[in-house]
Amino acid sequence: MWQLYQFPLCPFSRKLRLLMGEKNISYELVRENPWEERDEFWALNPAGRTPVLHDPEKNLTLCDSRAICEYLEETVERSPMINGTAAGRAEIRRLTALMDENFYGDVTAPLLHERMKKRLVLKQSPDSRVLRDAMRLVHGHLDYLDWLIDNRAWLAGPTMSLADLAAAAQISVVDYLGGIDWRDHQQTKRWYAVFKSRPSFRPLLGEKMVGIHPPEHYAKVDA
Amino acid sequence: MWQLYQFPLCPFSRKLRLLMGEKNISYELVRENPWEERDEFWALNPAGRTPVLHDPEKNLTLCDSRAICEYLEETVERSPMINGTAAGRAEIRRLTALMDENFYGDVTAPLLHERMKKRLVLKQSPDSRVLRDAMRLVHGHLDYLDWLIDNRAWLAGPTMSLADLAAAAQISVVDYLGGIDWRDHQQTKRWYAVFKSRPSFRPLLGEKMVGIHPPEHYAKVDA
Ligand SMILES: N[C@@H](CCC(=O)N[C@@H](CS)C(=O)NCC(=O)O)C(=O)O
Ligand SMILES: N[C@@H](CCC(=O)N[C@@H](CS)C(=O)NCC(=O)O)C(=O)O
Repeated sequence: MWQLYQFPLCPFSRKLRLLMGEKNISYELVRENPWEERDEFWALNPAGRTPVLHDPEKNLTLCDSRAICEYLEETVERSPMINGTAAGRAEIRRLTALMDENFYGDVTAPLLHERMKKRLVLKQSPDSRVLRDAMRLVHGHLDYLDWLIDNRAWLAGPTMSLADLAAAAQISVVDYLGGIDWRDHQQTKRWYAVFKSRPSFRPLLGEKMVGIHPPEHYAKVDA
Repeated sequence: MWQLYQFPLCPFSRKLRLLMGEKNISYELVRENPWEERDEFWALNPAGRTPVLHDPEKNLTLCDSRAICEYLEETVERSPMINGTAAGRAEIRRLTALMDENFYGDVTAPLLHERMKKRLVLKQSPDSRVLRDAMRLVHGHLDYLDWLIDNRAWLAGPTMSLADLAAAAQISVVDYLGGIDWRDHQQTKRWYAVFKSRPSFRPLLGEKMVGIHPPEHYAKVDA
C-alpha cells in the first residue's frame, strides 16, 4: 500500500489526496513535518519537501506533487484529471502551476509561515504587515478564478481537472488559516462549496492541525 | 511560427530552447523583461512570467515551462525527453522540479537578483552575504548531480532527458553570472562540457545580456 508523507496543512499533499480520492487509490498517511529536516526523510526526498509517495513493497519513491500526479494519471485510468487535447492539457497544467507557484507563493506560503510555523515552531507572533499583504493578494487570485468560473464549467475547461484540485487544495489551507474573505467572490465560493461536498474532500476537512483552529465555516459544506 | 517570449538569462526559457533545439522545432525570439510588467504580456500570461510560447496563427498561448515542455513532448515525436516507464518518467519529472524549484530558489534566483536585476533595474550594488549563501548552496546541489552522474549515464537514467536540459539551463545561467567554482565537481563538469557542444546549446552560449559580462570560460566548449 502507498504511504503518503505529509502534514495536514501541506497544500501539495492535499492536492494529491484529492486526486487519490477521486481515483479511489488507497494509501496510509505518514506524518512528516518537513521543517524538522529528518535525515530519513531527506534520504527519501533530496528536496526535503512534502509530499512524498512511497511504496515499500515495490521499493518505489515518488517526489514532487506534480510529478506524482502525472504518474498516477499515467498508471490509474479511473477519473482522468489531465485530459483532453494537447492544448487542453497544457491549460490544465498552466493553471495547476499558477496555483502551486503563484497562489502558493503570494498567499499560502506567507500564511503558513505566519500562522502555523511561527506559532508551532518558532514561537513568535505573526507579522501583521505580511498577513495584510497576503490577504490583499488573495483577492487578485480569487478575482481571476471568479472570471474563469464565469466562462467555463470548471477552471480549465468543460470537465473537472487537476487545476480544480490544485486550486481547492490551496484555498482550503488558506481558508483554514482564516485568510479568505468570501464576500466578494461568489463564483469561487459556489465552485468551492461543490468541492467541499465531494467524498474526496471530506476526510481533509475533518482533520486538524493541533494547536491551530480553523474558523467556524471552514468544514461546513454549505458555508 | 512559434514566438518565444523570454530574456537571455531566464533559465526556464533556456530549458525550453534546449528542448526545442533537440526536437528541431523552429521559433522566433521575442524579448520580454518580466520585471517591466507590461500589460500586453500579463494579458498573455496572468502569472506575468517568462517563458511564454505563442502561436499567432493558431491563436494558441502556452505558459509555464513545464506545461510547455509536456505539450511539445506530446505533440512532437522527435527526440523524446520524458520517456520510459511510468516510474522512469516520474524520476525525470522529479529531477526537473528539483532543478526548477530548489536549485533555482537556492542559487539561480538570488544570483539573478543580485547580479542582474540590481545592476540593470534597481541600480544597487549586490549584497555579498546573499551571494555567499547562494555560492555555498550551489555546492550541495552540484555534489548531488556529481553523485547522479557517477551512478547513471544521464541525470535521470540511461538516456538524455528533460532533467538534463533543466539542469544545464540552470547551471548555464549561474555560470554566466560567475557563480560556479568547477574545481570540486569533475563529474558535472564533464557532463556539462558534453552539453555545451550540442547544437541545441550553441546559440544560447553566444548570446549576451547587455551590461553583464560572463567569465572567460563561459562559452568555451572545452573549459
Ligand atoms: N514542488 C513541490 C513543493 C512542495 C513544498 O513546497 N512543500 C512544502 C510544505 S507545503 C515543504 O515541504 N517545505 C519545506 C521546505 O521547502 O524546506 C511539490 O509540488 O511537491
Ligand atoms: N514555473 C515557471 C517559472 C518562471 C519564472 O519564474 N520566470 C521568471 C524569470 S526567470 C519570471 O518571469 N519572474 C518574474 C516574476 O516572477 O514576476 C516556469 O517554469 O515557467
